[in-house]
Amino acid sequence: MTRADAERRLLRLGLTEDAVRALVEHFAEADRRGKASHGLARVAWLETQDFDPRARPRRVVAEPGYERWDGAGALGYLTLDAVCRAVIDDPPSQARLVVAERCFPTGALGLWARRIAEAGLVALLTATSPRRLPHPEGGPPLTGTNPLAIAVPSSDGEPVVADVSMGAVTHGDVLAGIARSDELVPFGGPHAHKAFALAVGLELLVGALAGPDHGAVLLVVRADHDPVPAFRDRAMGLRLPGDA
Amino acid sequence: MTRADAERRLLRLGLTEDAVRALVEHFAEADRRGKASHGLARVAWLETQDFDPRARPRRVVAEPGYERWDGAGALGYLTLDAVCRAVIDDPPSQARLVVAERCFPTGALGLWARRIAEAGLVALLTATSPRRLPHPEGGPPLTGTNPLAIAVPSSDGEPVVADVSMGAVTHGDVLAGIARSDELVPFGGPHAHKAFALAVGLELLVGALAGPDHGAVLLVVRADHDPVPAFRDRAMGLRLPGDA
Repeated sequence: MTRADAERRLLRLGLTEDAVRALVEHFAEADRRGKASHGLARVAWLETQDFDPRARPRRVVAEPGYERWDGAGALGYLTLDAVCRAVIDDPPSQARLVVAERCFPTGALGLWARRIAEAGLVALLTATSPRRLPHPEGGPPLTGTNPLAIAVPSSDGEPVVADVSMGAVTHGDVLAGIARSDELVPFGGPHAHKAFALAVGLELLVGALAGPDHGAVLLVVRADHDPVPAFRDRAMGLRLPGDA
Repeated sequence: MTRADAERRLLRLGLTEDAVRALVEHFAEADRRGKASHGLARVAWLETQDFDPRARPRRVVAEPGYERWDGAGALGYLTLDAVCRAVIDDPPSQARLVVAERCFPTGALGLWARRIAEAGLVALLTATSPRRLPHPEGGPPLTGTNPLAIAVPSSDGEPVVADVSMGAVTHGDVLAGIARSDELVPFGGPHAHKAFALAVGLELLVGALAGPDHGAVLLVVRADHDPVPAFRDRAMGLRLPGDA
C-alpha cells in the first residue's frame, strides 16, 4: 500500500486530516524501520476495527511531574501522538510520568520513544494489549506482548532505542502465517520465565495506573548526562538497539 | 553464616549499628526468598571491598515529583534503604522519580521494590553494575546484568514482584563455580538480542540520569487501580513473579 492509498482509505473512515497525517507518519516510519507489522499494512486492519473516527484524546490531569490522558475512544496512536507533541512542546523540568488510559492500539512503541529522544529527552514507554502470552507452564493467555521501549538521546545525533516485546514471535507474524499461534509465548526458551515476569510486571504496572482497559505509561526525563557516544565507541561498530 | 555472625563481622568493618541492621535485613530476606547470591554470604565479599563505612547517602535534590540522591561513597544497599524509607514516609501525591548516583552494590532489587509495594505503592527499579554482558555477536562486555524490578501492591496483601536480570546466569553463579563465565551472556538464546536491548536501554537510561558511575533509578507511583487479585484469579494458581 502506498502512502497516498493509505491517506485516501483512512480519510474514507471518517478520520480528520490531522489524524490521518499522524497515522500515516507512524505507519510509514514503521515500514522504513523494518517494523512492517506496524506499517501501512495496518490500514486494512483498521478498516475492520470499530472505533469513533472523531474521538480525540483528552488530557484530564496536568501537573508538572504527572499527567493523565484518556484516549476517550480515539485510536491509541492518536493518543500517543498527542502525548508526544505535548511533552516535546512543554518538557518537564526534570521528570514527568504520563499515564494514558484507554489507549489502544499503540503501534511500534520505539517510534514514539525515539521521537522524544530526538527532542533531547529520555523516554521509557510501555503499553498493554490483548492477552496473548501464557505462563511458561501453560494455561490461558495472561498478558499482552507488552513491549518496553527505552530511548536515550545522544549528542552524536542518533539516539539508542531499545524496543522489546516479551513474545517469542509477534501477533502480526501469527496473523501473517509466518509463525504458529503456539509459538506466541514469552521469549527465552529455558529462560521464558524471565520474559514472562517482565510481561506480568508491565501488565500490572499499567493496570494499576491506567485501569482495566489497555493503556500506556510513559516516563520522560531530562538527560543530565550523555552516555551514548562513549557507549558506541565501546561497542566498536556492533549494531546497537534501534540502529538502522 | 548466621545473622549474629553477619552482624558481628559487619560491625567490625566499622559500619554503624543502623547500617548493619539495614544490611542484615536485606541479606536475610534475600536468603529467605531464595536469592542466596544476594544473601548473608555477601558479608564475606563485603570484607574484601574498599568502601568508607561511615559514608552516608545524601538527598541532594528534593522536589515533589523528582529526587536525586548521591551515594557519596556509602554502600548502595544503604542508599536504597534510605530512599525506600524516605518514599514510604512521604509518598508522592501521584508519581516520583528517584535518581541515585554512585549507588553500588544494590543487592536484590526485587526486595526494595517489594518493600515499596508492601507500603501500597507501585515501584519500578533498575540499577547498573560492572559490565559483564557482551553483544550477542560477541566482543567485550558492554553492560551490567541490569535487573529490572517491578512491584505492584494488592488488596489481597501479596504484591506481585517481577525481578529480572538480563543475564542467562548471574555473576554470583560464576563466582560460585555453578556457571562458566562464557555463559554470562544476555538470556534468550536465539532471542538474546531482546535481553541485550533491554540491558542496553537500562544501562543508558541510568547513565543519562545518574552519570558515569553505577547508579539506580526508581519510579514510585500511587496505584489508582487494584489489578492483582483479578490477575491471580485468571492465573488459576500458577506461580506468579515474586511468589514464594
